[in-house]
Amino acid sequence: MFADIKGLNEECGVFGIWGHPDAAKITYYGLHSLQHRGQEGAGIVVTDGQRLKGIRGEGLVNDVFNEKKLESLPGKSAIGHVRYGGAGKGGLENVQPLLFHSQSGSLALAQNGNLINANDLKHQLEMQGSIFQTTSDTEVLAHLIKRSGYLTFKDKMKNALSLVKGAYALILLTETELMIALDPNGLRPLSIGKIGDSYCVSSETCAFDLIGAEFVRDVEPGELIIINDEGLHAERFTLSSSNAMCTMEYVYFSRPDSDIEGINVHTARKNLGKVLAREAQIEGDVVTGVPDSSISAAIGFAETAGIPYEMGLIKNRYIGRTFIKPSQELRERGVKMKLSPVRKVVEGKRVIMVDDSIVRGTTCKRIVRMLKEAGAKEVHVCISSPPMKNPCFYGIDTSTHEELIASYHSEEEIREIIGADSLTFLSVEGMLEAIGRKGYGKNCGQCLACFTGEYPTEIYPDTLLPHEKELNSY
Amino acid sequence: MFADIKGLNEECGVFGIWGHPDAAKITYYGLHSLQHRGQEGAGIVVTDGQRLKGIRGEGLVNDVFNEKKLESLPGKSAIGHVRYGGAGKGGLENVQPLLFHSQSGSLALAQNGNLINANDLKHQLEMQGSIFQTTSDTEVLAHLIKRSGYLTFKDKMKNALSLVKGAYALILLTETELMIALDPNGLRPLSIGKIGDSYCVSSETCAFDLIGAEFVRDVEPGELIIINDEGLHAERFTLSSSNAMCTMEYVYFSRPDSDIEGINVHTARKNLGKVLAREAQIEGDVVTGVPDSSISAAIGFAETAGIPYEMGLIKNRYIGRTFIKPSQELRERGVKMKLSPVRKVVEGKRVIMVDDSIVRGTTCKRIVRMLKEAGAKEVHVCISSPPMKNPCFYGIDTSTHEELIASYHSEEEIREIIGADSLTFLSVEGMLEAIGRKGYGKNCGQCLACFTGEYPTEIYPDTLLPHEKELNSY
Amino acid sequence: MFADIKGLNEECGVFGIWGHPDAAKITYYGLHSLQHRGQEGAGIVVTDGQRLKGIRGEGLVNDVFNEKKLESLPGKSAIGHVRYGGAGKGGLENVQPLLFHSQSGSLALAQNGNLINANDLKHQLEMQGSIFQTTSDTEVLAHLIKRSGYLTFKDKMKNALSLVKGAYALILLTETELMIALDPNGLRPLSIGKIGDSYCVSSETCAFDLIGAEFVRDVEPGELIIINDEGLHAERFTLSSSNAMCTMEYVYFSRPDSDIEGINVHTARKNLGKVLAREAQIEGDVVTGVPDSSISAAIGFAETAGIPYEMGLIKNRYIGRTFIKPSQELRERGVKMKLSPVRKVVEGKRVIMVDDSIVRGTTCKRIVRMLKEAGAKEVHVCISSPPMKNPCFYGIDTSTHEELIASYHSEEEIREIIGADSLTFLSVEGMLEAIGRKGYGKNCGQCLACFTGEYPTEIYPDTLLPHEKELNSY
Amino acid sequence: MFADIKGLNEECGVFGIWGHPDAAKITYYGLHSLQHRGQEGAGIVVTDGQRLKGIRGEGLVNDVFNEKKLESLPGKSAIGHVRYGGAGKGGLENVQPLLFHSQSGSLALAQNGNLINANDLKHQLEMQGSIFQTTSDTEVLAHLIKRSGYLTFKDKMKNALSLVKGAYALILLTETELMIALDPNGLRPLSIGKIGDSYCVSSETCAFDLIGAEFVRDVEPGELIIINDEGLHAERFTLSSSNAMCTMEYVYFSRPDSDIEGINVHTARKNLGKVLAREAQIEGDVVTGVPDSSISAAIGFAETAGIPYEMGLIKNRYIGRTFIKPSQELRERGVKMKLSPVRKVVEGKRVIMVDDSIVRGTTCKRIVRMLKEAGAKEVHVCISSPPMKNPCFYGIDTSTHEELIASYHSEEEIREIIGADSLTFLSVEGMLEAIGRKGYGKNCGQCLACFTGEYPTEIYPDTLLPHEKELNSY
Repeated sequence: MFADIKGLNEECGVFGIWGHPDAAKITYYGLHSLQHRGQEGAGIVVTDGQRLKGIRGEGLVNDVFNEKKLESLPGKSAIGHVRYGGAGKGGLENVQPLLFHSQSGSLALAQNGNLINANDLKHQLEMQGSIFQTTSDTEVLAHLIKRSGYLTFKDKMKNALSLVKGAYALILLTETELMIALDPNGLRPLSIGKIGDSYCVSSETCAFDLIGAEFVRDVEPGELIIINDEGLHAERFTLSSSNAMCTMEYVYFSRPDSDIEGINVHTARKNLGKVLAREAQIEGDVVTGVPDSSISAAIGFAETAGIPYEMGLIKNRYIGRTFIKPSQELRERGVKMKLSPVRKVVEGKRVIMVDDSIVRGTTCKRIVRMLKEAGAKEVHVCISSPPMKNPCFYGIDTSTHEELIASYHSEEEIREIIGADSLTFLSVEGMLEAIGRKGYGKNCGQCLACFTGEYPTEIYPDTLLPHEKELNSY
Repeated sequence: MFADIKGLNEECGVFGIWGHPDAAKITYYGLHSLQHRGQEGAGIVVTDGQRLKGIRGEGLVNDVFNEKKLESLPGKSAIGHVRYGGAGKGGLENVQPLLFHSQSGSLALAQNGNLINANDLKHQLEMQGSIFQTTSDTEVLAHLIKRSGYLTFKDKMKNALSLVKGAYALILLTETELMIALDPNGLRPLSIGKIGDSYCVSSETCAFDLIGAEFVRDVEPGELIIINDEGLHAERFTLSSSNAMCTMEYVYFSRPDSDIEGINVHTARKNLGKVLAREAQIEGDVVTGVPDSSISAAIGFAETAGIPYEMGLIKNRYIGRTFIKPSQELRERGVKMKLSPVRKVVEGKRVIMVDDSIVRGTTCKRIVRMLKEAGAKEVHVCISSPPMKNPCFYGIDTSTHEELIASYHSEEEIREIIGADSLTFLSVEGMLEAIGRKGYGKNCGQCLACFTGEYPTEIYPDTLLPHEKELNSY
Repeated sequence: MFADIKGLNEECGVFGIWGHPDAAKITYYGLHSLQHRGQEGAGIVVTDGQRLKGIRGEGLVNDVFNEKKLESLPGKSAIGHVRYGGAGKGGLENVQPLLFHSQSGSLALAQNGNLINANDLKHQLEMQGSIFQTTSDTEVLAHLIKRSGYLTFKDKMKNALSLVKGAYALILLTETELMIALDPNGLRPLSIGKIGDSYCVSSETCAFDLIGAEFVRDVEPGELIIINDEGLHAERFTLSSSNAMCTMEYVYFSRPDSDIEGINVHTARKNLGKVLAREAQIEGDVVTGVPDSSISAAIGFAETAGIPYEMGLIKNRYIGRTFIKPSQELRERGVKMKLSPVRKVVEGKRVIMVDDSIVRGTTCKRIVRMLKEAGAKEVHVCISSPPMKNPCFYGIDTSTHEELIASYHSEEEIREIIGADSLTFLSVEGMLEAIGRKGYGKNCGQCLACFTGEYPTEIYPDTLLPHEKELNSY
Repeated sequence: MFADIKGLNEECGVFGIWGHPDAAKITYYGLHSLQHRGQEGAGIVVTDGQRLKGIRGEGLVNDVFNEKKLESLPGKSAIGHVRYGGAGKGGLENVQPLLFHSQSGSLALAQNGNLINANDLKHQLEMQGSIFQTTSDTEVLAHLIKRSGYLTFKDKMKNALSLVKGAYALILLTETELMIALDPNGLRPLSIGKIGDSYCVSSETCAFDLIGAEFVRDVEPGELIIINDEGLHAERFTLSSSNAMCTMEYVYFSRPDSDIEGINVHTARKNLGKVLAREAQIEGDVVTGVPDSSISAAIGFAETAGIPYEMGLIKNRYIGRTFIKPSQELRERGVKMKLSPVRKVVEGKRVIMVDDSIVRGTTCKRIVRMLKEAGAKEVHVCISSPPMKNPCFYGIDTSTHEELIASYHSEEEIREIIGADSLTFLSVEGMLEAIGRKGYGKNCGQCLACFTGEYPTEIYPDTLLPHEKELNSY
């Protein structure tokens, strides 16, 4: 749903649990609370200690699973995945967890993030006779593990992790272990919880609340955690690690009730709105947010600015994937879709419209026009993050500069394009302040690459090409 | 979705348009914006001037219609319906519009509301050899029209309307006319709009915004409006009419962006919250609303009370009808569903939880416990409507006293049952003030029956019995 | 499937049972064995003595029913129906049994055949205020019963039957009785069986074999049979009855393992082939039949002619309704569909191709060409029935003279059109001899209308018009 | 469908075409005519010269493909596959053609038959780090090709073929070539056809008739044929080849209108019946066949014996995979399923029932009882093949001795078990005579392993184990 409104999509959410009698069902609920991270596919793999068994499918968690299917997944341990994936990225076989069987044991993998040297590695592996079944970068890891000369599974795994670069929050299931790994820069969130005696792991803490688990701790960058019947064992697989959490997780991706590194996302967003109000110093009659992700920031803005918060925009809750789009002609006649303005609220008013980010600018432009047509006297757009100028290579789907309006337009030009009476972006410093970070630069604890261009890792030119991605769609 | 959380369901929404080249598609969009009024079934009947053709089905508007189906509905005029209907109320054949063919012409009907003497009339008609195909009270109207001895269709219609009692916002389509009728007490909302030269009619004005129509006027109680190629013609079908709009439309049912009798629903709800804050005089650290319907009231409450509004409860957007419910055991282990508390927001706080109404009390009790388990120090429940003590016979599905907690418990008892630290209901006077009504009693312009027991019509004992409703499910 | 190959379709099969613990399941099996009589829809209505409950749907019996659905149909008595219905004949609501509820009791009807004065009666009923929900002629019967002034149900029923004309094998279920009626000319087959103590009724006796019932007797023309917990009671509802069984039931419609009026259908067909061989006196190298309906006749022909029977044509078993038809271009390239010739069998041979009838001639023409392209030296077409020159008004879907090639072409012209080296039709006398009838004319016991034009009833001009049929498809 | 009645299932059919504008559609029709060889899955892979694209699915060809899907498969060359596969053999991922992509080109494989050393080879490949995605023996070939050290694709292919043992009719598609290989014993049928200028290949010649292709020649044992834009090039990949066509292809598997090694299958079956009649010398009143596969033999038997052929058993055409099976209780009450006896045909008669083979004996027993219950005075079972005593390792699903009644019972014991008045099997010599083979033993041109135990290849103990097969069902 977020994906529909923004041109900004993350690639996934992962959840796993070890040693719980309702492993498949708990994983189902866990994936549910991560549904906002991916609506294109979902899968669960369980183990009963003897074998691995999985079900996966395209669509929402509820499209893929039902009572009967969950009951056909016996076992006390499970991992699951929800997936975002554009058209060109193949179908069912790319839905995770990926599951590999062999005579020496089975292996399931689920990953959030993006391996930036996957293509290089894949090329080398194919030269040696490996056959790939998916276009997923995650499959590279499976081949690296299988081909590794090390003796123990853990050493094979560490060997493989030492070869891949990029952003990954990875969970891996065998008949006897649940393994968890986070990339050395900690670009993606990943947290450990506990429900009774069972450890679980999730991309976001909101899953713990839903299933009644308590939060234990976040996974550290460069950490490899092994959970089995003897408990949890953690170690490092790399010496050099830093902390560079994706800032957009706070601004846009994560659910308001999740905590990332101890900070509640709703609270962080409200703070972003408060700092924004302080920086913007705009006069207006009403503050309104763009549902759903900008509501917290808008409320914070309204509180600090002392301007009433009103529901100036309504999101139609029932627009699903099958919704019939109005033709151009009908659109020109005024047929609206996901969002409707509330005329009585905005008519004759100076409206401060708070949104979390501008990617291509098209949605923002449409909303501003909508508000004006509904009678708003002025529309002041306030964005609770800085201009997004650089593509992300770590799993967020804004792959080219060309798509980012702020990478080739000044703020004044953007304001003109979207037709606003004023446009204010939050400053990078203000953003860091709002989420409680003090410093700036390499050690601020955040990845700011999309705003500042400072990437926390080396950059490879060859992430999987769209052309090739398409090839495998069987 | 509302239906899932509350035990309070309305029976329908209607939409119609005359003389528009995209009649079926416009009606589809119209029904979309009325989707919150009924998620159990949807239908559209069109006419091309020669014949009537319809498609209907169970589920959401999007489940029932797709591009191809809409294209198979040619014609410049259409009516549509979304329906709420409990289990015992039969299947497809009760989905409206009801469509009747005969050698002298066809007839389609769609209705929001409830005819309270339908059973009596049905019995008399069957004695005379009529065969009913549905258990819908609306079908009674069709038989009354067909059997009427009057010569013109309009007179047959007026004859039929003079025999039925209750609440009805009715639209009727023939090959040559769109007819609109509202019951003499105006219990249900119904508004006329215009898109270009085409008149349209809708249960709520939010449909007009979506399709780019402008609001013309509300339909008056006891009014019969005929729209055909010569324009709009209005007359009265009864001499005695009053104004008794269902108050719950403001409090709970309608969409925040709709206007009822000129009052915006979001604004009315925010006012309800403001008056409630003034009446309640509760101290607290944060105000939170129960999504989605109570957010406006909560924001109004926070503004007046000067206490910050926070997102203390999150609604899971992806819980659909196919969601697998947790077993009792899992629920006890803490698995939550539609709503999650935001621990960081409520922990250690005195939480003022604003909700719009209490029906059976079970949901409210669950939310209070949820907030307390998430660490809330105190939970103060403030309800933006008075205690609901009496059943509704006009189309809202709270048919017995037994289900209404306030009909047999004092406010203090309810507080204890739901486990709140305090419980405040809005007063009837406060409610009327908040929606801009001055007086009280018969002429206040609102139906207050569920709060005060003063029903605007006579009451019949025999609405359709559940037993019989079930019979017809073929 | 037959329907695909021929342009000749019958309208239905009926089955009923009273007083059996597995009533719904037995009816399901019964309908299965009648599936060849209608593949467009199927339905079952059961009664548990208190109420009637039904399930119906479009498609094959197996498309409509599954284990769970059958289990949801409790009760010891049931009736069922399989239906043939062309595009214009509306959808689900015309699928039988038709089920009508009223406060004085429920009523389900299933019929094979066609009421030729249905339109007249419907018109009169609508003038009196009745509302029809289907375009089925069967619904007229329900209204006539409901409107009848007689006191007992049986008398109402007889009153209604006295008003309708045409061909009908009718079964009717109430909470307390199963009623069976056959039209005064006995145009459609209908037989009584017994399984344990339970009476059952079926359009064809093959159903009895499948369910393990024994044949009791055929229903007589003009007979009304009532089965209830006290047993079977038979009486006449008309004084004037004759015996005019549809001859095409022997030639084409019925299953080879059914017996009609004591004659086995396979045996009758084999005899038709034998008499045809005797009449034709054709020389050839091989005899082949057109699968499936002409195999019996072809074998009889081969036996009498002393020419080997070979499988010269193969029917593709897996051509379903979803089969993708070859484009004209592909067809010209030679892509075949339902039937393939067996080259090695026909190559260089004088092939005697036995078919049961020629309706429009197009299929026959295609098969002759197919055989010739496969190398047949000569193709001699022998038809095991006389030329079909007149439309049927009794439920067989050949409604106009225009469609019947034999109604406006001589046998020699037909031969030329279909491209055969010779063409032989069975004589009317030969046909009657083969099925064991002695005389000819009114009292031969068969309806010969399609061959001779002598209709056993008066003819009404106004069977339901296609135009109107379409109207009701909601 | 065959699979339902017999306990005898073959594993597949393959079809391919090179250089035809309607490649996907032609392949669809081709698969249609091979549908009897496998109803569990179907797939098509096409190439447009640049890339390979495929669609596959579980179920019948018509379940998997529709117009739209075929149109989404562009290109002038294609291969397709229909598959039989029991429960334990995994789901979608085992449906062929298997399609493998890599940066150096793509590869699709479809195979009929069974590689008997697949498990050995798979084990070795996994030890070297290969990851298998299916449990199909065919995937082993892909890995062998990819790992081969030879330079050209053809040499890689020959290298791979030299390592696998067993029965295989294999087709392989790359962007530039269609490759065809038949195992050195020629155990499975495979023929080349031509439609216009385009070569095609099919498991059976009946596909050529359907699509309008002409037969060119059979593929020779040990032959590797390469078809590309330059034409057809054939060579041998092995020096030692023999001719050992599966005899059951004539007796049971192939379609009557196919020719195998120049012999028409219907004709061969009729001959089997003729020789059987000569050998049996049974007296009887009627001859009847078990539909569908034994009809030809029964007709041949009747002709030679001079006893009339009758339709004593009817197959219910509409029993699909969703048919609801009668409970034991209902079965005891007499409810029949796929087959019904024709009482009037068999009553009081000495019935000679011709069937093609006896596998477990259960079906035969049931039919004999059915005929007796329908009144047959005597039932003489005549089988148009010798007793089947040994399992097949070449792709026919009778994997153990235990399942074969003839492997541990004498003919007299079998007769008693099935309850027949006499039982006659065709002799091996008679069978060879009937299909036109002169000699006996190694050089008779047929595989007789299931009858005589003389296997044409070495035997490996480790075909893929059922346990492991199940593992991979993701």
